[in-house]
Amino acid sequence: MTKALLFDVQGTATDFFSTVRDEAVRIDAGRNPEIDWTGFVTRWRAAYFAGVAAVPVDSGTWTSVHSIYRGTLDGLLDEFAIRYSEPEAAELALAWQRLRPWPDAVPGLNRLRTRFTLATLSNADVSAVVNMSKTAGLPWDAIFTAEMAQAFKPDPAVYAMAATYLGLRPADIMMVASHKYDIRAAAALGFRTAFVARPLEFGPDGAVDLEFEDEFDINATDFEDLANKLDC
Amino acid sequence: MTKALLFDVQGTATDFFSTVRDEAVRIDAGRNPEIDWTGFVTRWRAAYFAGVAAVPVDSGTWTSVHSIYRGTLDGLLDEFAIRYSEPEAAELALAWQRLRPWPDAVPGLNRLRTRFTLATLSNADVSAVVNMSKTAGLPWDAIFTAEMAQAFKPDPAVYAMAATYLGLRPADIMMVASHKYDIRAAAALGFRTAFVARPLEFGPDGAVDLEFEDEFDINATDFEDLANKLDC
Repeated sequence: MTKALLFDVQGTATDFFSTVRDEAVRIDAGRNPEIDWTGFVTRWRAAYFAGVAAVPVDSGTWTSVHSIYRGTLDGLLDEFAIRYSEPEAAELALAWQRLRPWPDAVPGLNRLRTRFTLATLSNADVSAVVNMSKTAGLPWDAIFTAEMAQAFKPDPAVYAMAATYLGLRPADIMMVASHKYDIRAAAALGFRTAFVARPLEFGPDGAVDLEFEDEFDINATDFEDLANKLDC
Repeated sequence: MTKALLFDVQGTATDFFSTVRDEAVRIDAGRNPEIDWTGFVTRWRAAYFAGVAAVPVDSGTWTSVHSIYRGTLDGLLDEFAIRYSEPEAAELALAWQRLRPWPDAVPGLNRLRTRFTLATLSNADVSAVVNMSKTAGLPWDAIFTAEMAQAFKPDPAVYAMAATYLGLRPADIMMVASHKYDIRAAAALGFRTAFVARPLEFGPDGAVDLEFEDEFDINATDFEDLANKLDC
């Protein structure tokens, strides 16, 4: 029986796209009117994925996600021929630590928390998840992130850590994400799964896989729908 | 400037003494009327401290605090000539995972959370702190425990882990505890300190060090007093 829900954060619980794009537009202040900010954020997110994948396993030192966002930004600014000062670039990189939740996230989680233990299972840094959750009022019972396992999702060690810390069997835990690779990795370890479609994850015209699949225990349109389907 | 507060849980935020004594009395159901339950809980807590101290450093495997409480209980029952079934002993050991907060804890923390990030820094198991916090409504922004550092307080690694996860310097973090060894260990690493007196930690007649000391940044009578002294 499901006792706890684990949530992906960047994309599933929070809207990184509009947060980061709005912050870029604000910091740019009209200096670069020709920039496709949607493409900018999409490229940045892709660079993050490449950066995470390139982190050596068991290197003995941990690479913070903030350092990946910050490190990939300089090349991205070159690519888009944008010139920002170091403080401006640093400020822009911090946008990833202030992600706004999707409108359904807080009300949905407040319903879900009445029946389940709610925790994050994010690749973002602990400090980033703590800070954005506090600002947004995301009512987690616990925050778990890749940093605590010294490995990134979909490494099995990350999911296993969460089960150990919760003191529960994988079969009693449901992984919730808008990314199928994430919940498939959890399913392979015996976790239950919920897919949440996030059509705007990469903006109004973004290419996103929204298809519901029978392989998942639940398919939901948002966190309120997830609460409905879990009888909360 | 203090940005985050770390709280000890067993004794500082929660009243293990009355919780465990009441649970023992309930499970005993009058079968052993001669037992000094105050002495029983005090001895159990002492056995826990001895158990934690005996955990080998860097053994490669983690000893859960639940297993220490459960493991020490059998000897304690023998010592007090109490005969319980295995399910009764298992149920009694779980009392340590359901500790009730002190009456000032939730209202004090709700005031403190308006200005500070609040996290636990407990030697208890992650699952125990998650479960008791959810049941009691303790409004932590994050739960950190010894299990996440694979070392018990006062090992410096535990405090250092919390600073890393919060992304803050020790000087920006205040350790709050009713146990002076705990805040002294944090102070040695540069953390700020708050001592909270808990006169009933070991029951009405318990021997507890309640003396305020100039060496601590704050001395408080409870969490409401701590909120007053931190201008919340």
